[in-house]
Amino acid sequence: MAEQAEFSLIDKYFAELTQQRADIALGIGDDCALIKPQPATCLATSVDTLVSGVHFFPDVSPFRLGRKALAVNLSDLAAMGAQPAFFTLALSLPKIDEAWLAEFAAGLADLALEQKVQLVGGDTTRGPLSITIQASGYVSEASAFRRAAAQVGDLILVSGTLGDAGAGLAIRQQTLDTSLISEADQAYLLDRLERPQPRNALALALRGSVHAAIDISDGLLADLRHILTASHLGAELDLAALPLSSALKQLSDDMTLSLALTAGDDYELCLTMSETAFSDLPADIAQQLTPIGRICQTPGIHFLGKQLPVNLNREGYDHFQV
Amino acid sequence: MAEQAEFSLIDKYFAELTQQRADIALGIGDDCALIKPQPATCLATSVDTLVSGVHFFPDVSPFRLGRKALAVNLSDLAAMGAQPAFFTLALSLPKIDEAWLAEFAAGLADLALEQKVQLVGGDTTRGPLSITIQASGYVSEASAFRRAAAQVGDLILVSGTLGDAGAGLAIRQQTLDTSLISEADQAYLLDRLERPQPRNALALALRGSVHAAIDISDGLLADLRHILTASHLGAELDLAALPLSSALKQLSDDMTLSLALTAGDDYELCLTMSETAFSDLPADIAQQLTPIGRICQTPGIHFLGKQLPVNLNREGYDHFQV
Repeated sequence: MAEQAEFSLIDKYFAELTQQRADIALGIGDDCALIKPQPATCLATSVDTLVSGVHFFPDVSPFRLGRKALAVNLSDLAAMGAQPAFFTLALSLPKIDEAWLAEFAAGLADLALEQKVQLVGGDTTRGPLSITIQASGYVSEASAFRRAAAQVGDLILVSGTLGDAGAGLAIRQQTLDTSLISEADQAYLLDRLERPQPRNALALALRGSVHAAIDISDGLLADLRHILTASHLGAELDLAALPLSSALKQLSDDMTLSLALTAGDDYELCLTMSETAFSDLPADIAQQLTPIGRICQTPGIHFLGKQLPVNLNREGYDHFQV
Repeated sequence: MAEQAEFSLIDKYFAELTQQRADIALGIGDDCALIKPQPATCLATSVDTLVSGVHFFPDVSPFRLGRKALAVNLSDLAAMGAQPAFFTLALSLPKIDEAWLAEFAAGLADLALEQKVQLVGGDTTRGPLSITIQASGYVSEASAFRRAAAQVGDLILVSGTLGDAGAGLAIRQQTLDTSLISEADQAYLLDRLERPQPRNALALALRGSVHAAIDISDGLLADLRHILTASHLGAELDLAALPLSSALKQLSDDMTLSLALTAGDDYELCLTMSETAFSDLPADIAQQLTPIGRICQTPGIHFLGKQLPVNLNREGYDHFQV
């Protein structure tokens, strides 16, 4: 019982860190939170767990970990076109380390305040370090982006640049020769791994234009394939068109392309819309997106523009038509 | 990537086990679930984590574990007076054991179908065995049971019997002399630990009558104290009135009382209402509740009826007025 009391102190620790919203009738401190959802919208909700040693290095900055744990969930709301509103936190900790907790909470609050989302409940337990966040937001049923909604002829677009987080991971794992990469570029790539920026503002600006969308957590090919499978369609992908950062381009061409296609953790958006919808976008929105291909009738991913990296062919991608 | 594909198969495993509800616009399989909340109600939501070795024995029946993981969350909805509707499951598994998963899923589905709740999303990750469920339901803001709403003169009532799960735990931990307890009674006490029945139907029948409520997860004294603290009031508790099962009463008087007051995991409801409201309840509802005391102005818990067990005085309860 003493332990439970100690652990519930942590709830109090987090309770006042985030936005206080008008749609939250009752936040932390009772058996349930009470939310008054916006009328005539759907509630969009998504849950993700980050486990120490699996999804993050045990020695990662707790500030960055707190921020990222929320970011990956807000990214799912972005992929649905939903306006973020509130979240819960289930935190398992092997012991109570107040300095670590203060930093973790500050990182969480950093993004929560930026995105105006409120922590409404949580559970803190003793156990191996693990973070489960469930984020919820609002979107009308008609304007939600669904994986199954791609249409033949749609442009395939991605936000930001691809593969950076994968390069950051390789730097962290010391599996990358960094002798030719400047320190600033290494720091940039690590930032992309440890401090992903969910694309919620962009997603809201794209409501009404997007057909299908997903966020890139497992790598472009894997995530695009989810859209294609759900929509029962295929894609032509222009390998020469993939948006790459100048930092990533310091790696070999094969490595760069391989990371851009298959590395996870970028949390950029991959979405489809008609060519007309894209050309009607305001310039400041359109310039945040790069067309990388087109939805087609023939199932599978059909590569154009460049040879597929050799290692991809070996890793089971050789059934794709190049 | 192969592993992620394997783990996402588990989502499919769970996807069709539960109720399909009209208020779920989109369930498992996209970036978010989409829910159309009932109009003019609040959404009540609660999250709880069960960690192997902390909250359950690693060798517990996976069927019972799946059922209990959902039960403890539905119990929070009962404590709020909310009608259960949907839930998410974040499951960390050290490895994929299909027989274990089938049993776990069946246990989860058993209660989900009974309570008409739908699994709308989840995340399966590799990691130490841990289960986080977030359950949501509906209740109007006016009829929600809140911890802070107790009033002076209210009866304090509990559902079911107290202390049984604690005795079940002691049997499991082999810290109890079971020579005088029949096998049937031992099985009953273990059932109360491993197969708690959330009191959702009772809670809905009590809407409009209850002032404050909580579910008993940490023990009567600890949980009642949450109501008293939130309401800035005290309680007179009649130790002779605590509802005890015939199985539990086979233990010594001190042990019985100690478990009834401080053992957790019963998942019964503790609630307060006016004497008038209680006498106006239909007989079949009233008989599911036992009056055990009364809310008073003076802070603290004031014991009547019996001597407090010696071990409780030693464990820091001696600041209470007996």
